[in-house]
Amino acid sequence: MTVSVLNGIHDVVTEQRPVPSPGPGEVLVQVRAVGTCGSDVHYYEHGRIGDFVVERPLVLGHEPSGVVVATGEGATLHQPGQRVALEPGVPCSRCRQCGLGRYNLCPDMRFFGTPPIDGAFCEYVTLRQEFAYAVPDGLSDEAAGLLEPLSVGVWACRKAAVQPGSRVLITGAGPIGLVAAQTARAFGATDVVVTDVNAKRLRVAGELGATATIDVSATSLSGSGFEPDVLLECSGVPSAIGEAIRQVGRAGRVVLVGMGGDEIPLPLAHVQGFEIEVTGTFRYANTWPAAIALAASGEVNLDRLVTHRFGLGEVEQALTVAARDDSVIKPVVLPYA
Amino acid sequence: MTVSVLNGIHDVVTEQRPVPSPGPGEVLVQVRAVGTCGSDVHYYEHGRIGDFVVERPLVLGHEPSGVVVATGEGATLHQPGQRVALEPGVPCSRCRQCGLGRYNLCPDMRFFGTPPIDGAFCEYVTLRQEFAYAVPDGLSDEAAGLLEPLSVGVWACRKAAVQPGSRVLITGAGPIGLVAAQTARAFGATDVVVTDVNAKRLRVAGELGATATIDVSATSLSGSGFEPDVLLECSGVPSAIGEAIRQVGRAGRVVLVGMGGDEIPLPLAHVQGFEIEVTGTFRYANTWPAAIALAASGEVNLDRLVTHRFGLGEVEQALTVAARDDSVIKPVVLPYA
Amino acid sequence: MTVSVLNGIHDVVTEQRPVPSPGPGEVLVQVRAVGTCGSDVHYYEHGRIGDFVVERPLVLGHEPSGVVVATGEGATLHQPGQRVALEPGVPCSRCRQCGLGRYNLCPDMRFFGTPPIDGAFCEYVTLRQEFAYAVPDGLSDEAAGLLEPLSVGVWACRKAAVQPGSRVLITGAGPIGLVAAQTARAFGATDVVVTDVNAKRLRVAGELGATATIDVSATSLSGSGFEPDVLLECSGVPSAIGEAIRQVGRAGRVVLVGMGGDEIPLPLAHVQGFEIEVTGTFRYANTWPAAIALAASGEVNLDRLVTHRFGLGEVEQALTVAARDDSVIKPVVLPYA
Amino acid sequence: MTVSVLNGIHDVVTEQRPVPSPGPGEVLVQVRAVGTCGSDVHYYEHGRIGDFVVERPLVLGHEPSGVVVATGEGATLHQPGQRVALEPGVPCSRCRQCGLGRYNLCPDMRFFGTPPIDGAFCEYVTLRQEFAYAVPDGLSDEAAGLLEPLSVGVWACRKAAVQPGSRVLITGAGPIGLVAAQTARAFGATDVVVTDVNAKRLRVAGELGATATIDVSATSLSGSGFEPDVLLECSGVPSAIGEAIRQVGRAGRVVLVGMGGDEIPLPLAHVQGFEIEVTGTFRYANTWPAAIALAASGEVNLDRLVTHRFGLGEVEQALTVAARDDSVIKPVVLPYA
Repeated sequence: MTVSVLNGIHDVVTEQRPVPSPGPGEVLVQVRAVGTCGSDVHYYEHGRIGDFVVERPLVLGHEPSGVVVATGEGATLHQPGQRVALEPGVPCSRCRQCGLGRYNLCPDMRFFGTPPIDGAFCEYVTLRQEFAYAVPDGLSDEAAGLLEPLSVGVWACRKAAVQPGSRVLITGAGPIGLVAAQTARAFGATDVVVTDVNAKRLRVAGELGATATIDVSATSLSGSGFEPDVLLECSGVPSAIGEAIRQVGRAGRVVLVGMGGDEIPLPLAHVQGFEIEVTGTFRYANTWPAAIALAASGEVNLDRLVTHRFGLGEVEQALTVAARDDSVIKPVVLPYA
Repeated sequence: MTVSVLNGIHDVVTEQRPVPSPGPGEVLVQVRAVGTCGSDVHYYEHGRIGDFVVERPLVLGHEPSGVVVATGEGATLHQPGQRVALEPGVPCSRCRQCGLGRYNLCPDMRFFGTPPIDGAFCEYVTLRQEFAYAVPDGLSDEAAGLLEPLSVGVWACRKAAVQPGSRVLITGAGPIGLVAAQTARAFGATDVVVTDVNAKRLRVAGELGATATIDVSATSLSGSGFEPDVLLECSGVPSAIGEAIRQVGRAGRVVLVGMGGDEIPLPLAHVQGFEIEVTGTFRYANTWPAAIALAASGEVNLDRLVTHRFGLGEVEQALTVAARDDSVIKPVVLPYA
Repeated sequence: MTVSVLNGIHDVVTEQRPVPSPGPGEVLVQVRAVGTCGSDVHYYEHGRIGDFVVERPLVLGHEPSGVVVATGEGATLHQPGQRVALEPGVPCSRCRQCGLGRYNLCPDMRFFGTPPIDGAFCEYVTLRQEFAYAVPDGLSDEAAGLLEPLSVGVWACRKAAVQPGSRVLITGAGPIGLVAAQTARAFGATDVVVTDVNAKRLRVAGELGATATIDVSATSLSGSGFEPDVLLECSGVPSAIGEAIRQVGRAGRVVLVGMGGDEIPLPLAHVQGFEIEVTGTFRYANTWPAAIALAASGEVNLDRLVTHRFGLGEVEQALTVAARDDSVIKPVVLPYA
Repeated sequence: MTVSVLNGIHDVVTEQRPVPSPGPGEVLVQVRAVGTCGSDVHYYEHGRIGDFVVERPLVLGHEPSGVVVATGEGATLHQPGQRVALEPGVPCSRCRQCGLGRYNLCPDMRFFGTPPIDGAFCEYVTLRQEFAYAVPDGLSDEAAGLLEPLSVGVWACRKAAVQPGSRVLITGAGPIGLVAAQTARAFGATDVVVTDVNAKRLRVAGELGATATIDVSATSLSGSGFEPDVLLECSGVPSAIGEAIRQVGRAGRVVLVGMGGDEIPLPLAHVQGFEIEVTGTFRYANTWPAAIALAASGEVNLDRLVTHRFGLGEVEQALTVAARDDSVIKPVVLPYA
């Protein structure tokens, strides 16, 4: 099969590898669509994210969908031909974190496209059968892949306990901000205000359900008068995070989704005086069923996020297009297009 | 002003009383619409509900909306002319339950239309200003009154922690079941199945967003194969409650909203084996802002519930029409129509 | 090795079987002490509990401690010689319930002494290494086995959210009631009132930390004036449960631990009017570390519960002594005593 | 009566004022003991804390106990002669925060010794009767006053969800750290490790129940190998907070109790990667009953914290002694000693 491999910084090639065989309890999935993610771009640009370093050739790509084509011993959950979305990380299922249902915090997690585990920019992948989820016919292959970023949004909204009546501020209208805005609405949020400095993205936010948008290159957030009770921080811009937290009302909840380096300034007096809860997300756990429901019902529109499409031989272009074109939201890799 | 008074069982008359004056911190509200509730009917039929006994003439009606016409000393929250929905119970704000934010459990609650506190089947009422909520123009007077039953639905969905992915069973398609179905959808529930024995009501449930309905006079619930993770029991039919609870899946939540007498059978082995959480609701607390948001955005349609309208002189008809006509959902009393 | 086998109702024999071999990731444990439990007695008396039917010879016993004597492939958590307490149920670690951290609700749980899975009334057992927990030297073998019933108490207190200030009612002073009383105190409960009809057991309850006891054969609970905010129901006596729930104060929590048949009467009006949360427990999840801490620190005294000791050849006596002697609390089987 | 008044920075005098009269629903309390707090010292030193500025003469002191000597109209909760602990802040009981049970976040809170509200360094105070709590005979006047800092500890432990099995790190062994350590133990925490740079205070921590102490002037916290799942930050030292948060294990909870200026550095990557929950406390709500229970049972020893005693004429000494003597834990003002 054809595989797109990151050999090092700015060095992506395609090569041929044997099709893997599904082990016991696994399925073999022909990959139909894979979203590209900022973390893929980061590995391509820097060869590392924090402690995860690309030391050997690595296949990127962790937003895949596909079709089951074979099943391993004892894998009876899916039949060949089943269209599936893939949750791209398999925990050990043995440790304390797994026992507690926090499998995203499993120290032995094997996650697609994270060194040293290969991802899905290739024709076939194997996966433990429980992490492949049947998707309904109405959901496109691309949307099925983008259930991964949608899961990030679902996880953030769960941590923030968004519900009818919630006033939600979303900082950053990139792919995560745009799914978070839709997810917050689907959780019942009354007001969903999205900020960014990119007017095109803010327009998409409005189209997808934001009740208001603020271009923070022109208007200050603090001057907006909006006092959210939930902040979903999706920009990862350290200088903006502190200001955003200061907007949050009493007993509000802040979920830090955007990756913004090692340290940010926390407005202690505000966090104390208003007893604000601040947390961060690391991937997600137990989100695919809800994400499928939201996408299948049309409450969340994932197809709208796809702006560019590439083949397996064009992964490098998929990873670099965002830097050259501010209309990019989500480039998708289609191995068979 | 004209007031409709319950003097005893099956004995409703209108009489003239002075317009009340708003005390410190209170508003005087001209009543525009008041929904009738099963509990109003129960007082009319039986003269009591549990320990609450009609011993003196009582004004019923606790689903009111209106217009602020005067304000008491220090009441600055609303201006005369403001259209408002009224939360019809005022707690003591002093006791342990109030301090904990569970003011609906305040033992000194003064609740409209509950002996010995008069309700809103009249032209004017006074109320502590915080319990009058401004409503947007797009919301009809009738819908503003029906924020009260909507609050019951919001409270039930909060207790049940309904969210995207939730599979919800609602037993009973009366007014509460019909708002609960809509509310569950607004909280993001994926499946909302409503049961009743009244085909007309089930049709309305389908129209208002139930994803499926079951006529349990024809089809058994247990045969449906539906395994909800939330049950909102809105029928109050003891014999049906046990069967409904047995349908609920592992770690599911049951909220008993319908009043069904003193005691019901609880399927202990199922509650234990599946670790099901069972609770009941008593009115609501802190729900009006969310209810207003849901009704104002159109996510919940309250106007559709209003099937009959009566004047202040026709309260007895409003209380008895349901017994004669199975198309009745919510009769509303309009003092000025 | 010698094994005690239940061949059918009232039919327990010892036989010789080969010592099992630890599979990959498993440990082989020499059993040192095994508590007997009411469910063991129930299988002995009735051959079944609900849907679990003894259809083939079954080894009972699910409260074991022991010493690791060999390790399977890849099992590096424990060294031979390590004293361990055993969590006696191994879930599939693959299903939705396991993923959510509710592994006690796993439909494929393999639980010691529950048909068709053999238990620990024998010399050696194998177990997945994560379910064997190292115990400190200060903890006796018998206490290490009784971490299993202690886990039931920990789980109940977690579900009830017991904390300083909690007023706790515990109905039933059998082994579970007696650990629950101690556990509630360790969680910080201010008042812990224990009821039973057995004066000897009530005396032990007082000795172990109950702040008050009520002999309900002489004094009615409802006359006691005690209004708990937590009820841990450990008697399983249906007629008593309803009365106990009626005692519970506003927003109280009821955890039904005692098994009391298929159905109990639930005081609906009280559950609704006071918005009481009622749930049941099914075993436990993620409790051993906390249970070990409580027993090791002396906050919970498990040794005090052991009233009778038997060898492997005396299991039948261990299972029948309780019926003949009201001073029995916890008979323990010691394979090597 | 004699009143100690702060006229400005470093300017405390005593003066005579009339004894106040209890209003409706209020009690008049003769003050018996008042703890001094770091915030009292801060007002004395700087004339302000954040936005709260001493613009007029102010009576400090918000940790009082006393005896009811008179009751206002309708105040029937206490009889004259009743010994009481005083919760020193009275919320409006009308706003959204009060309705939600978060009365500590009430924007109209009237809090003792916080401009412009006078505190308790005087002979008599009035208070809404619900905020005076009867204390048992076994509790000293001084301990009854120190229920206020104990409430801070209870509130922090509730926010941190401390329970049996919890491993708790407490940074700072001042009065709050010392009550927090005891409170964490009373909530069932298994390990309670306290850090400070003051060896005398660490010795007291050990005496009062800390399972270990670390002198961080000599030993680095990060080198300790301790991975808490709860951090109660009681030092307010910004440079230490980041390091402490980095110690916290997966899904841990951080409660920032110590006041440490406007901003601190938050280790974002750690908060995200381990999904740590961070929050701060602002006073407390609904804590006195639990605090009384903990102090009355002896689980928390408040008397041990009192190191120095002063009369009403010596308030300035009470506020300055800490700067001169590193053995000071809690100076107490005794108006009648």
